[in-house]
Amino acid sequence: MNIDNKLPWLLQKKHIAHIEGDHLLIGDRRRYPWEHSYVACSSVAQIAQAIAEMVTQGGGPLQVGLTTMRFLAKKIEAGHESNALTSFASAVELLAAARPTNTTMRRTLERFLKHLQPWYANDSSQKSLITFVGSIIDAIEAGFDADYQQMSDHGSLLITNNAGILTTCFAEHTFILSLIKAREQGKNFTVYVPETRPYLQGARLTAPALVELGLQVQLITDGMGAHFMGQGAITHYMTAADVVAMDGTVVNKTGTLANAICAQYYQIPYTVFAMSPDPSIHTASDIVMEERDGKEVLYVNGKLTTLESITGRYPAFDCIDPALISHIITPKGLAFPHEIDSLYGQREK
Amino acid sequence: MNIDNKLPWLLQKKHIAHIEGDHLLIGDRRRYPWEHSYVACSSVAQIAQAIAEMVTQGGGPLQVGLTTMRFLAKKIEAGHESNALTSFASAVELLAAARPTNTTMRRTLERFLKHLQPWYANDSSQKSLITFVGSIIDAIEAGFDADYQQMSDHGSLLITNNAGILTTCFAEHTFILSLIKAREQGKNFTVYVPETRPYLQGARLTAPALVELGLQVQLITDGMGAHFMGQGAITHYMTAADVVAMDGTVVNKTGTLANAICAQYYQIPYTVFAMSPDPSIHTASDIVMEERDGKEVLYVNGKLTTLESITGRYPAFDCIDPALISHIITPKGLAFPHEIDSLYGQREK
Repeated sequence: MNIDNKLPWLLQKKHIAHIEGDHLLIGDRRRYPWEHSYVACSSVAQIAQAIAEMVTQGGGPLQVGLTTMRFLAKKIEAGHESNALTSFASAVELLAAARPTNTTMRRTLERFLKHLQPWYANDSSQKSLITFVGSIIDAIEAGFDADYQQMSDHGSLLITNNAGILTTCFAEHTFILSLIKAREQGKNFTVYVPETRPYLQGARLTAPALVELGLQVQLITDGMGAHFMGQGAITHYMTAADVVAMDGTVVNKTGTLANAICAQYYQIPYTVFAMSPDPSIHTASDIVMEERDGKEVLYVNGKLTTLESITGRYPAFDCIDPALISHIITPKGLAFPHEIDSLYGQREK
Repeated sequence: MNIDNKLPWLLQKKHIAHIEGDHLLIGDRRRYPWEHSYVACSSVAQIAQAIAEMVTQGGGPLQVGLTTMRFLAKKIEAGHESNALTSFASAVELLAAARPTNTTMRRTLERFLKHLQPWYANDSSQKSLITFVGSIIDAIEAGFDADYQQMSDHGSLLITNNAGILTTCFAEHTFILSLIKAREQGKNFTVYVPETRPYLQGARLTAPALVELGLQVQLITDGMGAHFMGQGAITHYMTAADVVAMDGTVVNKTGTLANAICAQYYQIPYTVFAMSPDPSIHTASDIVMEERDGKEVLYVNGKLTTLESITGRYPAFDCIDPALISHIITPKGLAFPHEIDSLYGQREK
């Protein structure tokens, strides 16, 4: 089943990334919602740079990474790149290094490389490289789609009628499918969307995507979550996760920690959608926390908010203590934070 | 002693409001720090409108209100307004209604009206109206200056060496004088300034004012306070208050509540500077909480952050439970929240 039909424009695979002629086109989330435009990349280096510059973000780089493997196979068959497993391995390295904190793309592409090995081992493979790579990526994408479906079944059941759901940043497929299914179950709810400075992913991505689906949305500033919790308007807090450690520590966009602490203060459940807990990360101290250029905090959509001489700080992510989290929804089901280790605490197959 | 010499440009009385010819000029905080400009008002109605449009905010309207009384006396003597106590009373009503939550200006101007009564009662006053009004306002201003001095003595002593001080919005005289005095006491510290969306008072007012004084400033987004608390970088939280109720409830700019909850979670003291606890307000339920037009959340400095069709919410203030507050610094000294009633719980003299 193609879940793209249910999803808003922004999350449909072809609008995250697709190949057109000699280029890989990445949906430009910096220009959405005003423009539905793409950044065209002609090399893996350009793709990695686009990811570093946050043309796409959150779960976007994963889909871009998968599409890049198809793109590279095409370039190799056209004779523009050397036909070796190391071409793919270097591409994976370059893409994974573009943003250091979220390791889902890196681990997924490393899985891809393992599946690719047989093609190079048996030189006489009956399939073309493009077809072989395509079938691996198709299977990986189908696996993620199945995970989205299963996880959003859980998510939708946690949403109660007349809920007020706070989120942070852009929680993508699992969260948005949960909302779609909750509505299909006849539930009424309002989603409170913090704008998510400095990049405004909440204002620019989440709010328009939910409005496109006909859902009730209230856009607020990043400091207002506690206000609406205190009024009783917010009853649920739900986010995605960029990293989940084996001890249940969650890493997500800056601003998540404050809302998680306030949710606990008001006894509001905090649910995390975690596509892929990372078995190599045991606790918070194993996580590479990205700090971006503080200058970015001084701008809104390219316009200066203060004097240019002011020093800004931009920790891209928060690290959230497991004690602040009510449930983590994973591809292996709904878990309490302390259960993550028993579900994922070993090498991935 | 004139405290204006110590203060940053923005807080010097003449830059908050002054009279020039037929106009009262209000320092335009919406254009600062890029411009040092004024909005010229030729009537009390225009002044009230400027306050509603947040040309000035926080403690600004109080100084504007005081200067408006001098302005009105001048207009009356020039024969442009009817010479009656009711002219002043209507002006006070108009100004006080411009922003409903903060009652300091209203109560200060009502005090002014009481002091003005004798002039109208003894028609043959030896002083001109301008001189009489001027002497009342001079005394009120001197009283506030003395309060700023005394309160900032307390504030400075709470700041420890190598402190990281988080604030919210623009905490004005008492906070900034506390920082100045702490530095004079030889202490080193960094001030973490959340930008304070939607109006960016932190980015536009607080950060430039502190940098003008040569203090160390880090500008962050409104969701990052907890992040730096968790890292141990923030050791103190200090804000002004728009209202303080007799039970110790504090009202301050939206975003204050989330930081106060997170400060308690990390056992960081939260200190509130309260110019004038309001004896007529007993608990949170007596406070008029202003909700401004939600459209304002969709803009940054006049530029749209999302689709114009999105619904925004803009509660201007947070209400903070006394249990979240460590100390309240008042003109009557440093108090715990539960002591406010015994200090202020009666009609003001």
